[in-house]
Amino acid sequence: MTSRPGEPSSSPMASSPPPPPSSSLSPPQIPMKLHEINRLKLLNSLREHLSLSSRPHQGFVFLQGGEEQTRHCTDHTELFRQESYFAYLFGVREPGFYGAIDVATGDSILFAPRLSEDYAVWLGEIKPLSFFKERYMVTFVFYTDEIPKVLHDRFQGSGRPLLFLLHGLNTDSNKFSKPADFEVLTSILFSCPELSVEGIEKFKTDMSILHPIITECRVLKSDMELALIQFANDISSEAHVEVMRKTRVGMKEYQLESMFLHHTYMYGGCRHCSYTCICATGDHGSVLHYGHAAAPNDRTLEDGDMALLDMGAEYHFYGSDITCSFPVNGKFTSDQCLVYNAVVGAHDAVISSIRPGVSWVDMHKLAEKFILESLKKGGILFGEVDDMMVERLGAVFMPHGLGHFLGIDTHDPGGYLKGAKRPLESGLSALRTSRELQEGMVITVEPGCYFIDALLNPAMQSSNTSKFLNCEEIVRFKGFGGVRIESDVHITANGCVNMTKVPRETWEIEAVMAGQSWPLKNEQPCSENGVEG
Amino acid sequence: MTSRPGEPSSSPMASSPPPPPSSSLSPPQIPMKLHEINRLKLLNSLREHLSLSSRPHQGFVFLQGGEEQTRHCTDHTELFRQESYFAYLFGVREPGFYGAIDVATGDSILFAPRLSEDYAVWLGEIKPLSFFKERYMVTFVFYTDEIPKVLHDRFQGSGRPLLFLLHGLNTDSNKFSKPADFEVLTSILFSCPELSVEGIEKFKTDMSILHPIITECRVLKSDMELALIQFANDISSEAHVEVMRKTRVGMKEYQLESMFLHHTYMYGGCRHCSYTCICATGDHGSVLHYGHAAAPNDRTLEDGDMALLDMGAEYHFYGSDITCSFPVNGKFTSDQCLVYNAVVGAHDAVISSIRPGVSWVDMHKLAEKFILESLKKGGILFGEVDDMMVERLGAVFMPHGLGHFLGIDTHDPGGYLKGAKRPLESGLSALRTSRELQEGMVITVEPGCYFIDALLNPAMQSSNTSKFLNCEEIVRFKGFGGVRIESDVHITANGCVNMTKVPRETWEIEAVMAGQSWPLKNEQPCSENGVEG
Repeated sequence: MTSRPGEPSSSPMASSPPPPPSSSLSPPQIPMKLHEINRLKLLNSLREHLSLSSRPHQGFVFLQGGEEQTRHCTDHTELFRQESYFAYLFGVREPGFYGAIDVATGDSILFAPRLSEDYAVWLGEIKPLSFFKERYMVTFVFYTDEIPKVLHDRFQGSGRPLLFLLHGLNTDSNKFSKPADFEVLTSILFSCPELSVEGIEKFKTDMSILHPIITECRVLKSDMELALIQFANDISSEAHVEVMRKTRVGMKEYQLESMFLHHTYMYGGCRHCSYTCICATGDHGSVLHYGHAAAPNDRTLEDGDMALLDMGAEYHFYGSDITCSFPVNGKFTSDQCLVYNAVVGAHDAVISSIRPGVSWVDMHKLAEKFILESLKKGGILFGEVDDMMVERLGAVFMPHGLGHFLGIDTHDPGGYLKGAKRPLESGLSALRTSRELQEGMVITVEPGCYFIDALLNPAMQSSNTSKFLNCEEIVRFKGFGGVRIESDVHITANGCVNMTKVPRETWEIEAVMAGQSWPLKNEQPCSENGVEG
Repeated sequence: MTSRPGEPSSSPMASSPPPPPSSSLSPPQIPMKLHEINRLKLLNSLREHLSLSSRPHQGFVFLQGGEEQTRHCTDHTELFRQESYFAYLFGVREPGFYGAIDVATGDSILFAPRLSEDYAVWLGEIKPLSFFKERYMVTFVFYTDEIPKVLHDRFQGSGRPLLFLLHGLNTDSNKFSKPADFEVLTSILFSCPELSVEGIEKFKTDMSILHPIITECRVLKSDMELALIQFANDISSEAHVEVMRKTRVGMKEYQLESMFLHHTYMYGGCRHCSYTCICATGDHGSVLHYGHAAAPNDRTLEDGDMALLDMGAEYHFYGSDITCSFPVNGKFTSDQCLVYNAVVGAHDAVISSIRPGVSWVDMHKLAEKFILESLKKGGILFGEVDDMMVERLGAVFMPHGLGHFLGIDTHDPGGYLKGAKRPLESGLSALRTSRELQEGMVITVEPGCYFIDALLNPAMQSSNTSKFLNCEEIVRFKGFGGVRIESDVHITANGCVNMTKVPRETWEIEAVMAGQSWPLKNEQPCSENGVEG
């Protein structure tokens, strides 16, 4: 043993036990069965689609997983996160995989990269194929350089094997998903003289059928998917409360981000977030996607600021997306109350109205209307709310959509079915979906009310809208920023479940910020959430 | 004000003040002057080079900054970090910029992207060009769509303006840096009818001169660069100590990562790390680049494990790279001591020998020799160390190079000058530089000793090396993992300065893990760091 010179430390720290964990949660087991269920769901939908057009149940769903990326010309490796469709079907955390599902037999096949001997020294044990077969619960595992041969050998139809490739529009990014890369496969074939190069040309490919079907599978969540989204919500809710409790005037915005990231990773095992944290205070609250590299959460919190914190952790690919707004000094002013209660009221009204069959566009309008009514009651707006709705005044205060699907992507795909048109009206055009709600969907409810010069100034100058605006009052809100309240809800047969568990009423927030535990022990009904406070 | 029902909380938490900050550090001001100095240094080197070949001091250094990336087809934006050469010259944190330096006048010119009106609502205030001029201390700022016109107008030579573009090999990644993208510029020209499309074809380009010159500028650090690297070292050293102190048997490896990330961001404002944290315990310590997505720091710490934590924060692009190794239960066993002291002795021997003119290959061999001698003293090896050196036995226990340049990249470029050959011998071939040390270099000193089955098994079977190995002793180290000790040193006129300030002696580590403050108050010399412990 090593010598330890000097007397034993008499510091009070020395013998004190480690502090108790600051969380009641711990990361759940990763349920790989979930992906088997996802594959089965896709297989059933695809077979049904093929039957409808009297086509044989033959061919392979064929996807390429993500590749690890380095930063520009350097060897700096970015932390890899799997491509979302591949994650949905296979749950594979490693880069460089391909995957197939045999439409005829239902067999699932993973193709793993063949790693060099060096890998064992630098990156870790080279796992046998059986390891991946067991971990990912697939029927077979081969190496990626065996893809053409395996698919040819296993194809049960006549002629060239048919590959269903992923190609379709993401309606949030306006980008197309990239079908599995055949150039790579061709180069593999060239390096395998025992396989004929013509092999690859002997595949038939279909680029239209798979994308809408798998996307629709992703829209409706299974119980196992819901459980992961619930865990991501639980740990993120807890982290939001932790941040709220520790926020102090004089801190930097990024310190709130750091506390959130630490809590969700330390106690939830969440290495990734669903998106870059938005930690906006003061005027920054009016920047909807604040927090990126050009606006990096670096302001100092000032007394009297509102904070708008939009942060959500991801666990085994499934995410959460939660926004809390609160005064950084722990006490709402009457103006803050006015705006906050307008938004929380809209949030609650929407959640009370959500059920299968309801149109998301109607929910958006419901939120807008509640906010406009509240601002009118608060003396900020004049006139008839119905007239304001006609002039789309709501979009001045809430220029974003009410919410979006949530799952493996924060903006989960499927918001617009093929051929569906985006609404054209101001505000509604920003909606990430215009669909009717269905049981099994998970969607964010995130009304907001912001004071954005770039929108308020034109509205004050337009004859259509200026008549509604009480400019003398509005001027007081210059620099206010904004309030957003965002929860993740799961649509059930009769309504919805709010998966997000954070203080929402102003008095709950004030109690938690004053040090009370959450959930509050003596929970009391809100006596009155009116703007008079 | 809102109502707050119920009596005031009587929880002991309620009125307790926030805990005191856990750091003596705070983020320093960002010194933009640093980049002005970098530009001047490049300009001087480039002009000198041109003079030597009797070429005129004309044309523009022309670089493209990094672009923000989204994940596959989604709208998930990855947190942007500037391309390193662009960061070196301009220090710009926003994506989408180009930059030029006029070789004739020394003027520096930034080109900012012209942002859409939507940007103000979603991403933040659209800054005027004067904002960037002031922030980045450049001579002029224009929009990117003005690049061709500006460069043509300002060119002082005759004929077509010459652009010095960045094109050269990164000897760590074996990738070439990407010269500024002319396709983008061409498409800009097409969209600007007032500029002739031929404009772009009227540039001359040079792809060979710039890269080696700017790379060599980066190799030798200025005082302002050293100060940033020192801060990254200070906050990371403090975070390592924090992690060491809080490590407990039963934790997960990623919890150590989480604590490190939190400390460096919360108290150091470091949003980025220099590289993905390597938090290896037990056998994982023998995986040199553990911690990536396929080996994601997810093991549970067991009593008797060594931890090998390789983690470094980055501040305003400049990084740190620090490894600490310690027993997770806070007490070294005699075997752990043997291996640890072999490595710390090698580390100290190298640092004592470093000075300008010393060959890095010799430093590597010095470390190897110390480790082999220690393993021999500990009864793990037999025979003459000089014979072991001839057979390259050191590479079995330390298969990586002794260290690498450190700066804006963790593996900072310039390790091999053009035409320099990598050593071919086992172990030495992994060196990221074979250069002689010079004043102003910053390099990591990171000897290690690992028990890697993939290397030990062949060594035990080879007649050249098996004679040195005491297999009966070595078998005890199966599953031991490894020890690495890594500090960042700055080469001075007469020696070097160790910028890393963490406990290194076994007794220091044990004292800190037992709760003593760091630096130790009653610092004592190590009575004897011999392997007998």
